[in-house]
Amino acid sequence: MSSSVRVYFQGTKGAYSELAAEVFFGRMIEGIGLPKFEDLPGALDKDHQAYAILPIENSLMGSIHRNYDLLLISDVGIVGEVELRITYNLFGLDAKNEIKEIWAHPAVLEQCREFITKHPDYKVMSFFDSAGAAEIIVKNNRRDIGIIAGPKVASIYGLETLVEGIEDNPMNFTRFLVLSKKKDIYREPDAKSSLVFGVKNEPGILFRCLSIFALRNIDLMKLESRPIIGKPWEYIFYIDFRGSIAEERCRKAVEILEEISVYFKFFGSYRVIKEHNYESQSKKM
Amino acid sequence: MSSSVRVYFQGTKGAYSELAAEVFFGRMIEGIGLPKFEDLPGALDKDHQAYAILPIENSLMGSIHRNYDLLLISDVGIVGEVELRITYNLFGLDAKNEIKEIWAHPAVLEQCREFITKHPDYKVMSFFDSAGAAEIIVKNNRRDIGIIAGPKVASIYGLETLVEGIEDNPMNFTRFLVLSKKKDIYREPDAKSSLVFGVKNEPGILFRCLSIFALRNIDLMKLESRPIIGKPWEYIFYIDFRGSIAEERCRKAVEILEEISVYFKFFGSYRVIKEHNYESQSKKM
Repeated sequence: MSSSVRVYFQGTKGAYSELAAEVFFGRMIEGIGLPKFEDLPGALDKDHQAYAILPIENSLMGSIHRNYDLLLISDVGIVGEVELRITYNLFGLDAKNEIKEIWAHPAVLEQCREFITKHPDYKVMSFFDSAGAAEIIVKNNRRDIGIIAGPKVASIYGLETLVEGIEDNPMNFTRFLVLSKKKDIYREPDAKSSLVFGVKNEPGILFRCLSIFALRNIDLMKLESRPIIGKPWEYIFYIDFRGSIAEERCRKAVEILEEISVYFKFFGSYRVIKEHNYESQSKKM
Repeated sequence: MSSSVRVYFQGTKGAYSELAAEVFFGRMIEGIGLPKFEDLPGALDKDHQAYAILPIENSLMGSIHRNYDLLLISDVGIVGEVELRITYNLFGLDAKNEIKEIWAHPAVLEQCREFITKHPDYKVMSFFDSAGAAEIIVKNNRRDIGIIAGPKVASIYGLETLVEGIEDNPMNFTRFLVLSKKKDIYREPDAKSSLVFGVKNEPGILFRCLSIFALRNIDLMKLESRPIIGKPWEYIFYIDFRGSIAEERCRKAVEILEEISVYFKFFGSYRVIKEHNYESQSKKM
């Protein structure tokens, strides 16, 4: 019997989401890559013992609204968060051979634009499946092809690093959520909690909602409004606060907020892991 | 002498940013595409009569933090906003000929993932310059290549539509800001105003800041907190509100907010144009 944790993620072997799961669980996991983010809640519906990883915010691109939408319509809880620094390298079979083509995922190409435009002689091909691309390169012994990916893909396929850190912006961090059907509540004082609520739009309504947290000295870590498409005068708000729903003052605040909301969903109280050092990163700038 | 408006944008001929400028100014513009968003403020520094277009928020991806950062460090004002629906078509030289390759910008490929994965036989190439790609196809009479782009690129190069609306999600809207060194204030009651402020993090501080708007019945249209990288306990907030700084109550609110902030920047009061109908779009879902 295996004691490994089963984790669903979007992407293929070696994706940053898979790395986030390993960092969170602190050991090897059984990672299962699925084609779309939208496939993740359904996978958990069928596999209640498993977890899923969902990127939710990037330091350059902001909150990933489509993944927030997914949380809204799914019956899953947030049981953890991992923040990773995202960096990309150019990998190949042989550092001594000159490459003529670059293969990468479109989202990765987008983040390595400067490197690519500095090499207009490279032919640039897109693959949604980086692991698949690496496999083709290895199988066909293509020494003329470089692949841009995170460090994990290269280590899986035994590729050599040709150029390191080719992302345009080194201040590239992504927050990943760990999701589960089990909805365990993390009760320690360093917990973070997340919820979404909607209110009828009237001047000052958000002010009244925030008073619930201010009166209880609860620290807001994130607040973001979002218009509801199709209802231009209504908004929903995402809130992250410091504390666990297991604490009396947090439980009270959440109860009262739910009472005055027209729409409300509590996502969970969970543990946060940051796999990088902001200080050392910011000194690099 | 030409009376046309000169507008800088990121990208190449036919980009959605260029279309946003045409919609805002309601006529032909002299569009000048630059390689990076970061090039736009510098272009305005050298050309005080011109405008620039900056995408700032997408309905699927959220706020574009790197472009907010650009506003923070640049001495430009917001003088307008345009909201466009983003849709992508597959274009080619000849609708009767079968295509074997798809060429597109990585960001476009990313948004048309479902269409592409449904056609695994197509070879997928990435180009940062869609106009350049269209030019190559036309010049070399390549009837075997399809290009994915917005409708403007095709009309410029006289391409035929092969497949319409191939974006994964039809609820794809982007907000573009119109920037200028002139910082004209729009004074009409339908104005929107934007600012950013930073406060020392203490529980309830945001609540106190919002009270300034609530007391004056000023309607907040967007509120977003963002941690300052390297200073994990400090936050900046983006606020959009309904009204013009030319109105007494708005001017007062902004003055008082500036007084209690450690960081403050007012971006402008401006006119908003929405080139789509939320209602009809949402009925499509």
